[in-house]
Amino acid sequence: MGKRSAVPGAHSPGHPRFQTPARWRRRGQARVLVSPRASVRMQVDIANALGEVASPGVSRAALERLDEHVATVHERIEHGISEREHGYAALALPEDVDVDAIEATTNAFDDTDTLLTVGIGGSALGAATITDALDSEVDAHYLDNVDPEWIADLLDGVDLASTTVNVVSRSGTTAETLANFLVVRDAFDAADVDWTERTFVTTGDDGPLRRLADRHDLPTLPQPAGVPGRFAALSTVGLAAASVCGHDLDAIVAGAASEREKLAPSLFDSPAYAYGAVAYALDARGASVNAMMPYAESLETFAEWFAQLWAESLGKDGLGQTPARALGATDQHSQLQLYRAGPRDKLVTLVRPHEREDRTIPESEADELAYLAGTGLGELMDAEFDATEASLAAAGRPSVRIELETVDEHGIGELLYGMEAACVLAGELYGVDTFVQPAVEWGKNAARGLLGEGDYDETDAVAEKDRLVVE
Amino acid sequence: MGKRSAVPGAHSPGHPRFQTPARWRRRGQARVLVSPRASVRMQVDIANALGEVASPGVSRAALERLDEHVATVHERIEHGISEREHGYAALALPEDVDVDAIEATTNAFDDTDTLLTVGIGGSALGAATITDALDSEVDAHYLDNVDPEWIADLLDGVDLASTTVNVVSRSGTTAETLANFLVVRDAFDAADVDWTERTFVTTGDDGPLRRLADRHDLPTLPQPAGVPGRFAALSTVGLAAASVCGHDLDAIVAGAASEREKLAPSLFDSPAYAYGAVAYALDARGASVNAMMPYAESLETFAEWFAQLWAESLGKDGLGQTPARALGATDQHSQLQLYRAGPRDKLVTLVRPHEREDRTIPESEADELAYLAGTGLGELMDAEFDATEASLAAAGRPSVRIELETVDEHGIGELLYGMEAACVLAGELYGVDTFVQPAVEWGKNAARGLLGEGDYDETDAVAEKDRLVVE
Repeated sequence: MGKRSAVPGAHSPGHPRFQTPARWRRRGQARVLVSPRASVRMQVDIANALGEVASPGVSRAALERLDEHVATVHERIEHGISEREHGYAALALPEDVDVDAIEATTNAFDDTDTLLTVGIGGSALGAATITDALDSEVDAHYLDNVDPEWIADLLDGVDLASTTVNVVSRSGTTAETLANFLVVRDAFDAADVDWTERTFVTTGDDGPLRRLADRHDLPTLPQPAGVPGRFAALSTVGLAAASVCGHDLDAIVAGAASEREKLAPSLFDSPAYAYGAVAYALDARGASVNAMMPYAESLETFAEWFAQLWAESLGKDGLGQTPARALGATDQHSQLQLYRAGPRDKLVTLVRPHEREDRTIPESEADELAYLAGTGLGELMDAEFDATEASLAAAGRPSVRIELETVDEHGIGELLYGMEAACVLAGELYGVDTFVQPAVEWGKNAARGLLGEGDYDETDAVAEKDRLVVE
Repeated sequence: MGKRSAVPGAHSPGHPRFQTPARWRRRGQARVLVSPRASVRMQVDIANALGEVASPGVSRAALERLDEHVATVHERIEHGISEREHGYAALALPEDVDVDAIEATTNAFDDTDTLLTVGIGGSALGAATITDALDSEVDAHYLDNVDPEWIADLLDGVDLASTTVNVVSRSGTTAETLANFLVVRDAFDAADVDWTERTFVTTGDDGPLRRLADRHDLPTLPQPAGVPGRFAALSTVGLAAASVCGHDLDAIVAGAASEREKLAPSLFDSPAYAYGAVAYALDARGASVNAMMPYAESLETFAEWFAQLWAESLGKDGLGQTPARALGATDQHSQLQLYRAGPRDKLVTLVRPHEREDRTIPESEADELAYLAGTGLGELMDAEFDATEASLAAAGRPSVRIELETVDEHGIGELLYGMEAACVLAGELYGVDTFVQPAVEWGKNAARGLLGEGDYDETDAVAEKDRLVVE
């Protein structure tokens, strides 16, 4: 389990900060990538979203006008936070989350080799974002789908004797999660491992899952009050997995707290608000798609988490910017053609860490490759980032740059909190009810009916489908 | 390596087809999911994209008018295929690809435990789509990014003595691929394994990679003439990996050939054209986003491949539908709120197999879960599919349903060829140059300049970027 310390080691005042003209400093074989503009915390650079650069773009004057709304909205948000209103309570988590309670529960599972989190949507993506971003000896898997072949392969591949299961569902009624849990229990029985010794549950105060946990005396973690799943990464829902994987929860929370402190009545003073306001303003001007493109494999799941946050929170009343997940540098060879030369309906959000462990490209016998030798892979990736950003600007396409110091606990805490606050701000600007997701109920009822759980009008509609099949 | 047979076993005439009223037939513990409308081949159902159901939607009359264009375009495509014109040559691959030559090369690596394909974009995604869709004893990884920490972790985790490397780049100049190859070679050297014994190369007739292969006497596979990378899945580029993984190449090609045979002067006679024409027609009516949502974990990479195909082929001249990758049932808990209640700018493409090995959900002690007991996970997934499709229709949102018989070699061949032909048809209807990607050159030049490979005007533009940083 992670050490308790207010300021995590990697960010202690003694941490070396290179401001040399060279972008690199050698450290034996591995090298630390150093940006010439190294910063202590998350930065949001909105220069390439301005109307003077891009179309669609937002003028400086329009941003100033929008900033008056931001001041009003900020008051609304602060009120919601202080009253712990539904949804807004998520932004109080850096203060409210009980790290000790989480660790007290997960400490019992410190022999874990594999962690299976059984949950879907917000019950999986926040935790997955954290554990996929950070290195761990524990193998973390997320059973967030009911594909039978995939589940079977997954269960066949793990040693259940050293596997811990975390079942996550606020209502305790999510069909996919309960079905998977029953299948997992069955696999433990078949392997002759006592699942009740290897399982803890994260759920609400009531419901089938709570009763099942009580019946079997399973350790349980509460779901935070007033926090929808997609905003729950910084609570028990997201942090329990991180704790089992040995990550420093305090550092994650400290990162989130540092962004909490920066919420302010002006978008020019808060990176989170700057991002939310600019994304909103660009959508209003035609950028109906937001391509989230981190330049780090470790942040691939972050893009997926962001896609849920953005889609489910803002996608209502005919409004909402459509998130598209991308990955740098890979998707330069897949999506960039469209981003540069397709419809002018996109904001591209480029995310990168300032620092990462680099790997030097060796020399080769081919003259044509001489330019690569001695460069780092990370340096190449950084050049691709700069080139892509500039290539979008050269085509007059808007982008926003988000930079973290590094992908560690603190950085992930900043990023998650920052994007949540950005989303809440954007929701206020759109005027939508950010914290609900009423449009998914129809399908849930239809599916329940199809499975014979009861009579639903929605189920009848399924049978009425016309067909126009080409085969 | 796969058996040679014109008709793969799973599709032989003796294969049982259940047309019972029940949707399921028990086979001991595992059960085979049987659709009530079991079909022999890929089906495309466009009923829920019609104007009578959805907005945006396309009327039957408009489809009839569009079908006259399809007839003309079909002639153009057939001419391109018969002349093996650039790009169109991809649709001749079921006839042209030399499976024996691929297997002759890969047979030398039949002791492979791990396959590392070093390539990016079209040099990786087609192969990855196939090997991720199908079960294999061989672990296939794709080094399609230059993230140094990710590459280091990946190389640390494999036994290089039983690892085969396939380096894929048509030009032989792709910076990311060459850099990764040099790093991989270095890892082999460090592990004291002769990389020249474990490497083959898939490249064009000339270029640095070809010369490097010649110098070290590496086995090489040719790149198909006139076939851009994103259309090369059914060539050496996509099939070499499948061969190393032991898949039946002939069955893949037979699947592709069966869709080739169905290309016809009417969209009502060709599933591929039906899909391409409807996607185009819906984009013209406002569905500027195409959410590709397979209901199978094994097809997750297919959605990524489709995203490249669609984005890079159609995203030009200010045109092109933006692909969004999704995954059923998982993304019902993430994206469905937006799809149902956000802007009316989306087509949702739902893909599923008719049949899969199912896993029965066990009974539990909780009454509330009784409705799940005895159901299969696959049955649950199927109910979610039907429910999501109906829920989109109930909200008046367009969707198209694509169904495969099963996710096997034949099915993947159908799907890949079908989507390629759909894309070519759509490109003709848009009037764009489907087979080029000029907009990515700018960034490549900028990156080369940043790495000191020469002087490029684009590199100067990178340095001129303004900043408006909020931190």
